[in-house]
Amino acid sequence: MFLLGVVILFFNKLKNLPIVVLLKDFFKEDKKQKNKYKRSSYLFTVPKYKESRNFNIAFQKHKTMNTHEHFMKAAINLAQNGMDCNCGGPFGAVVVKDNKIIAEGSNSVTSTNDPTAHAEVLAIREACKSLNTFQLDGCVIYTSCEPCPMCLGAIYWARPDKVYFGATKEDAAEVNFDDHFIYDEIELNFNKRHIPFENLMRKDANAVFEAWLNKEDKTAY
Amino acid sequence: MFLLGVVILFFNKLKNLPIVVLLKDFFKEDKKQKNKYKRSSYLFTVPKYKESRNFNIAFQKHKTMNTHEHFMKAAINLAQNGMDCNCGGPFGAVVVKDNKIIAEGSNSVTSTNDPTAHAEVLAIREACKSLNTFQLDGCVIYTSCEPCPMCLGAIYWARPDKVYFGATKEDAAEVNFDDHFIYDEIELNFNKRHIPFENLMRKDANAVFEAWLNKEDKTAY
Repeated sequence: MFLLGVVILFFNKLKNLPIVVLLKDFFKEDKKQKNKYKRSSYLFTVPKYKESRNFNIAFQKHKTMNTHEHFMKAAINLAQNGMDCNCGGPFGAVVVKDNKIIAEGSNSVTSTNDPTAHAEVLAIREACKSLNTFQLDGCVIYTSCEPCPMCLGAIYWARPDKVYFGATKEDAAEVNFDDHFIYDEIELNFNKRHIPFENLMRKDANAVFEAWLNKEDKTAY
Repeated sequence: MFLLGVVILFFNKLKNLPIVVLLKDFFKEDKKQKNKYKRSSYLFTVPKYKESRNFNIAFQKHKTMNTHEHFMKAAINLAQNGMDCNCGGPFGAVVVKDNKIIAEGSNSVTSTNDPTAHAEVLAIREACKSLNTFQLDGCVIYTSCEPCPMCLGAIYWARPDKVYFGATKEDAAEVNFDDHFIYDEIELNFNKRHIPFENLMRKDANAVFEAWLNKEDKTAY
């Protein structure tokens, strides 16, 4: 009985130790996340840990590390799933706000006959629709590959806070995607590009800009 | 009677002169085009001139000049109309194939809450839908303003034959659009950009690219 009492007391002490609480919560939440992945839904929230004076810093660090990796993993899974179902190329992206995925996209160029249906563009469109705005303030984008110039442009127009990317444009070039080629083309003069560009009727076009400047009821962006 | 005969003969001779035929056709067709513009439809064809041994070169030159200006005018009109109806910014674009406009777009960012709804992107999407393909072979794009990096990227992915643009990116910057700013950002290192970019889990992301390379039933693009 005495020994049993000692053991119970020991375990009661032990379960209050910081490291055990941390590990217990970690595995509990990790299992939850895994189950959510299995349901093929990435719309999960990152666990809200009970804050305590002692473990706040450790929890914060743990939370942040998991967040980025989980969200990037979600983007990479979308790339893999999109490829597997022949939706398009091997690219996926998610838009995150307040530690929640609010939109996701996987490349759908070939299945929808839309050359602009890249993962990032689709995720940005969905996020904006969901937030009912054309600006992604306070959002972070996780994409399985460094954005091509089109997606980079879309990102700048949507203005999220930050972008995390997996593979680089050099990696994409190695599997025969034009990302790097387009970056090179941007720097060339119009007449040296593979697709030639020519200026025409600049004055007439600028007359519309002049009208825009003088328009009183415009929505600037 | 003699004088009348001379006058008739003179006019008969005159109307066969190259310059008169050219001018007559020019004004006739120009009027037709104007009427078509009034009906707010840009889906017109460029007049097919009767070919003749004598005037073939002159006609060809005339035809080409009119084509480009008419199509650019259509793009500029779309910019003006889109702005007037508060659809979005002052930008318009058309996609032309076989001397016909097959798709058109005007900036709709603010009215649709879609930061990717630029004129060129919308026109490219519509053209691809209409042609049932994700490639714009044999097409020419006319846009009222030099494409921003997003639209430039979309153009490279759609691969049309040529692009004509009206205003330049410097002109767009003067009316407070970010085109030039985004071009400058592209050249900066990730950590120096206004929107920071960070690399994460490159190895995991590349595993999907590896799977793509080995995928046998893929549609490459």
